[in-house]
Amino acid sequence: MSRIEVERKVLGRNDLVAQNNRRRFASHGAYVINLISSPGTGKTTVLEATLARIAERLKVAVIEGDVQTDNDAKRIEATGVEVEAIVTGGGCHLDATMVGKAFGALEPRVAQGLDLLIVENVGNLVCPSAYDVGEDEKVALVSVTEGEDKPLKYPALFHAASTCLVTKIDLLPHLDFDVELLVSNAKSVNPAMKVFQLSAKTGEGIGEWIDYLVASSLAPSDAEGES
Amino acid sequence: MSRIEVERKVLGRNDLVAQNNRRRFASHGAYVINLISSPGTGKTTVLEATLARIAERLKVAVIEGDVQTDNDAKRIEATGVEVEAIVTGGGCHLDATMVGKAFGALEPRVAQGLDLLIVENVGNLVCPSAYDVGEDEKVALVSVTEGEDKPLKYPALFHAASTCLVTKIDLLPHLDFDVELLVSNAKSVNPAMKVFQLSAKTGEGIGEWIDYLVASSLAPSDAEGES
Repeated sequence: MSRIEVERKVLGRNDLVAQNNRRRFASHGAYVINLISSPGTGKTTVLEATLARIAERLKVAVIEGDVQTDNDAKRIEATGVEVEAIVTGGGCHLDATMVGKAFGALEPRVAQGLDLLIVENVGNLVCPSAYDVGEDEKVALVSVTEGEDKPLKYPALFHAASTCLVTKIDLLPHLDFDVELLVSNAKSVNPAMKVFQLSAKTGEGIGEWIDYLVASSLAPSDAEGES
Repeated sequence: MSRIEVERKVLGRNDLVAQNNRRRFASHGAYVINLISSPGTGKTTVLEATLARIAERLKVAVIEGDVQTDNDAKRIEATGVEVEAIVTGGGCHLDATMVGKAFGALEPRVAQGLDLLIVENVGNLVCPSAYDVGEDEKVALVSVTEGEDKPLKYPALFHAASTCLVTKIDLLPHLDFDVELLVSNAKSVNPAMKVFQLSAKTGEGIGEWIDYLVASSLAPSDAEGES
């Protein structure tokens, strides 16, 4: 059996488990996002800033993926939000089975209702984009300290994601970085991409992202209908 | 056959090809480094700054890996250094076969001698660390815009690398970043790690890195003996 055939079988099985996860998430009425970026883009910092602003408005929980250590899960725990850690032990992405298992551990703690489940993937711009974990949407993050051509060099993620957060915009005055070029590169890969520019440090731009997240979480889902 | 068994077989075959690459590199007398980091750490910018300073002192060539586009290879070509591009088409790491094939294309152009071959891996802090491509050493890069805990969260690379470049130190005045904590985290994973702090933008710290690279490239290799 060739490596490609094995990969295809693994992905096939993953998609079945992801569909099962999706049904479980929908039974709670939860909107689910899967945050994906390079290491160092500031996923956890954006997540902390997001939780601080939505915890009053939404019932939210987090599944926190890391290759090693549960440092990030501890940071989320400190915000008071329910969190379950996945340590992949070297694995380069989260898959649907890992997320399903983590949600099983989280489920008794969110029995009173869940509007939004946030999955923070391991830091990797390549591998996680191929794996459906049952999310409603993948959210790509890219910081202004990275290159403007990231969407062109890593197109799989920018195809798979429907929202892009441009992070660390407080650093723009100190950088030779053309945000508009980044945005146009992202939209050249995915013309329907929604883009939010923000700084978790200063709070600039966070409001629009929060409004989008709240609206998506409280909208009636396709599964629930509009009754 | 389980996925893990397949991965083990693939790695076993990779190691054989890597050994063959290593013999070919040694027959040219070339020292070989494999640059690994997240996307956006500044590998290509550090490489441009490095080439500008060593091209007079060493015979050097570059193998440039990217998931998609040959943008980076074009940047290296513009420096006048011989370069061969590998576009993995979605693949998350370079392997020994890809590098061996690229070196085959480069070989006629470096027939007059080669002191240093630099392989720039695809931007990924996880997968490339498991693959020997025949290099003498892996060099990990981490920028001061990423977190101080990166070595703890991605220990496989910091185990596999023997040198670490801390990049973008010109941005330190604008960041809450503790460089000493990053260095001590890197050394806690790998006590023998050599660390160079530098800015490709201002040139600060580049000299020490260049001196190390020149000394390593001109030292007689184990394969050549000291005769």
